Order: sequence, then structure tokens, then C-alpha cells
Amino acid sequence: MRIGIFDSGLGGLTVAREIKNLHANQSIVYIGDTARVPWGIRSPKIIESFSLQLLSFLLKKQVDMIVVACHTASCVAIPALERTTQLKVTGVIEPSAKDAVEKSKSTIGIIGTPTTIRSQAWPTAINLVDPTKKVVSNAAPLLVPIVEEGLENHEVAKIMVSEYTKPLIEQNIDTLVLACTHYPLLYNIFEGVLGESVIFINPGESTARSLEIDDLEGNGEDEFYFTDLSDRVKANLEHFYGREIKGKVEGVEIESL
Amino acid sequence: MRIGIFDSGLGGLTVAREIKNLHANQSIVYIGDTARVPWGIRSPKIIESFSLQLLSFLLKKQVDMIVVACHTASCVAIPALERTTQLKVTGVIEPSAKDAVEKSKSTIGIIGTPTTIRSQAWPTAINLVDPTKKVVSNAAPLLVPIVEEGLENHEVAKIMVSEYTKPLIEQNIDTLVLACTHYPLLYNIFEGVLGESVIFINPGESTARSLEIDDLEGNGEDEFYFTDLSDRVKANLEHFYGREIKGKVEGVEIESL
Repeated sequence: MRIGIFDSGLGGLTVAREIKNLHANQSIVYIGDTARVPWGIRSPKIIESFSLQLLSFLLKKQVDMIVVACHTASCVAIPALERTTQLKVTGVIEPSAKDAVEKSKSTIGIIGTPTTIRSQAWPTAINLVDPTKKVVSNAAPLLVPIVEEGLENHEVAKIMVSEYTKPLIEQNIDTLVLACTHYPLLYNIFEGVLGESVIFINPGESTARSLEIDDLEGNGEDEFYFTDLSDRVKANLEHFYGREIKGKVEGVEIESL
Repeated sequence: MRIGIFDSGLGGLTVAREIKNLHANQSIVYIGDTARVPWGIRSPKIIESFSLQLLSFLLKKQVDMIVVACHTASCVAIPALERTTQLKVTGVIEPSAKDAVEKSKSTIGIIGTPTTIRSQAWPTAINLVDPTKKVVSNAAPLLVPIVEEGLENHEVAKIMVSEYTKPLIEQNIDTLVLACTHYPLLYNIFEGVLGESVIFINPGESTARSLEIDDLEGNGEDEFYFTDLSDRVKANLEHFYGREIKGKVEGVEIESL
């Protein structure tokens, strides 16, 4: 099976990583829009338009399903994608909302990019599963650049994680959804700040578990495409994917999407 | 006169501000590529292609000159722009390089985005003016997101400014070029960290002084265009421009550039 995954940049590789962990024989066909990353600060209309371009690229690559790894796109672009393709489209929110409801006994906290939080997609998805569930959320805009710059272990990571989670802790959350592809790379920091009393939900993991994939034999060869295949992107690939990159890695012109 | 200015986003408004300070009667016609900001982490090829799109937009708006407010584009896109238009194209580097050489008695420090620093455009421009001048530089990737998120007075701003300028201070710079449109908004932090012994060069100011503009009578009406006119962009306009926005503010589709 060819699992088509798109993302605003490198972050979605943390979702691809979880899918690969469960389905090593299948092929990941990944496109990251590194020429226009980050998306989490942009308007829903722009994100929808960028998402449709990436979908059209994946369709040309003959994928069998679409996974929207980008949280912001999962919040605002799924309906437009579903109108455009017959393939099954899976965003990262729905599967993780189910997981969060299952695990939380009190209040669920959400931390994500400004557009993700503003979209209210998370409380909506959680309350579809359980209308009585209390959800509190906070935007954490500086965490993406912190991870992108490799500052995960720098004191600013700890300072900002403390600051962004403070209002959630004050509301007594027992579960925290790391609602951005970059945040799993800050897992140790989150754990250090919030302690072990909070359950963390990594939506990449929830999404990987939710996919209905027959684990047929396959060569498991991956393909990675980026709209800006800069040195910086090349240098960070394996850090985000969490394993050796064996498949082909290619640049793609935005105009050709 | 209609002064066409383009930038990757809002940051160039700090350059527009300096031009407006000196030429209040002239009209600023500004386009910021907020749908694809930031540019400083992208490849030169991508930045050249985005720059040519913005140029073509400004030409349709009948401007009389082009100012490239974006430092990264000033480093890598000026030759392509000059091949495309007959109008005078002014980047922020050349005028500021002259200013820096004039003011420095020892070593000049440059602080900017990764692509700006990697391009070596600054040492090249300074050594064109004075081949014996010593130049040291450092990339400061987190400062743009810090300013974009309004964290100028947050402790992380001070921590990162200290860290990024440390290797420059160790090399005994007497002059520091703030080689990114966002950094003038961190002026107080830079001054706090480096003290008054260092001369700061604000390239927006140097560029504004270098423009040859006849200060004819004019209505001084400005126009501002953005490829993503999000709430966030609207909310930050005046902070970057440093004055009340009186002219029209419009969104522009990237496809129509």
C-alpha cells in the first residue's frame, strides 16, 4: 500500500514515523511544503488552498489513502479534501479526540498553533465523542520555531512550555493533547514541566493506530518530496522521522503541484 | 512619487516607516507576502521566485521605484529583479554597508536570518566598500518568531539576544548591523545586552537616507497589500509601521501576482 501523507513541512514526519512503526512493509509517500512552512499562523482559506495542491500531488503519485499530518490542515481543510478525492482522508484530530476522551477522567487540555486553537476543531471533535467533556486550550506559537531550530534542550524550551501550559494546569487537566506535529519532539520537556500525573496524547500515534491497513507484503520503500529541499531540510529529515531515511528524497516545484 | 516596497511579511514595515519619516508626502505602496512568511529559512532559488512575483505586482501598481525591504531577498534576489525591470531597485544592504564602514573603527558584527548569513552578502558588500574591514556574523533564527509573537519584552528575547551576540562580542565588534527587518523592534534588548559602547546600524534607516527622492508635493497616501490578510496581520500592522495606518489595506491572492 502507498500511504500518502502531507504536511506543512518536516513536522509531519513525526506522524509518518508512528505509521511506519506499525506498518513497516507499507510505503510512505510524503510531501512537506517546506517552501511555505509554517501554516499554523495563516488563514484557513490559505491553508485550504495549499492543502488541495498537496493532495493533487499525492494523487498523481498513485497513493491509496491520504493522511493529513498537519494539525492546522486537519482542523480546517478536511471537508475540502473530501470533496476533491474518493480516497479515504484521515486527519490527526478525530482519532486522537477518541483516545483523549477514553483516557481522561476530568479535563482535557489542548496545546497547538494559533490557527489550530482558534479553529475550535479540538473541543468540537472531543465533544462529538463526549458532549459533557470539559476542554481547555492554549496556543503555543513559539514551540514550532524552537523545535525547528533544534533548541529542544535549550532553557527557552522549558520556559515557554511552562508558560504555555500554566493556564491549563491551573484548570486541573489530567490529559494533554500535543496538538502539533512538532511537540512530540519536546516530550521530555513537557514531562519535566507537567510531571507524570498528566497523560499525554500524541496524535501521530493515535492516528497510526486508527488506520485500517492490511499489512500485506510490500517492499516498504518510502518516498519523500519537499517544495523546498534546502540543506536545512536535508539535515533535519532523520531527526523528525526518527529513523534512517532509505527512500528517495526529492525537491518539487510549487508551480508543478 | 509612488515608492514600491516589498517584503516577506510585516517586517518590511520597519523599513517603510523610516522612508515615510523622511518623505511624508510620498506614497508607500507596500506588499508583504504573509502567506509565505518567513523567507529567511528558505533556499535562494525559492526566494528569487517569490521576489519576482511581488515585483510584478508592484509594477502593475505603477510604482516609480522598488525598495527590497526584506534582507534575505536583498541578499539573493537583486540581480534577478534588476534583469526584470528598468526601475531603480534598492536593497537594504548596500546603503547600510557604507554606513557601517563609515562608523566602525574596528570589527563589524552582522546578525541576521540563516539564509542572510549563509549568503555572505554582508561581508561581500562591506568589503566592496573597504576590503580591509573585518566582519564577523551570526545567524539568529529565533528572533523573528519572538518579535512576530510580541515577545519583545519577554525574558526569552533577552536570553536569545545574549546568546546570538555572544560570539560577536567575543570578537570585539564596535558596530552591529541589525540585518533583519524585525530586529529594530528589539532595539532596547540589544542595547541592554551590548551596552552603549556598540554602534547599531538599522538598515531601514540607512536605506531611507540613501533613496534619491525629490520631495515634491504629494498626497502621501499609502497602500498596503498582503497575500494573507489574517486577523493577526491586521492586529500587528501599526506596531511594525510605528504610526497610524491611514491608507487602504487589502488582501491579494498569490495566484494573481
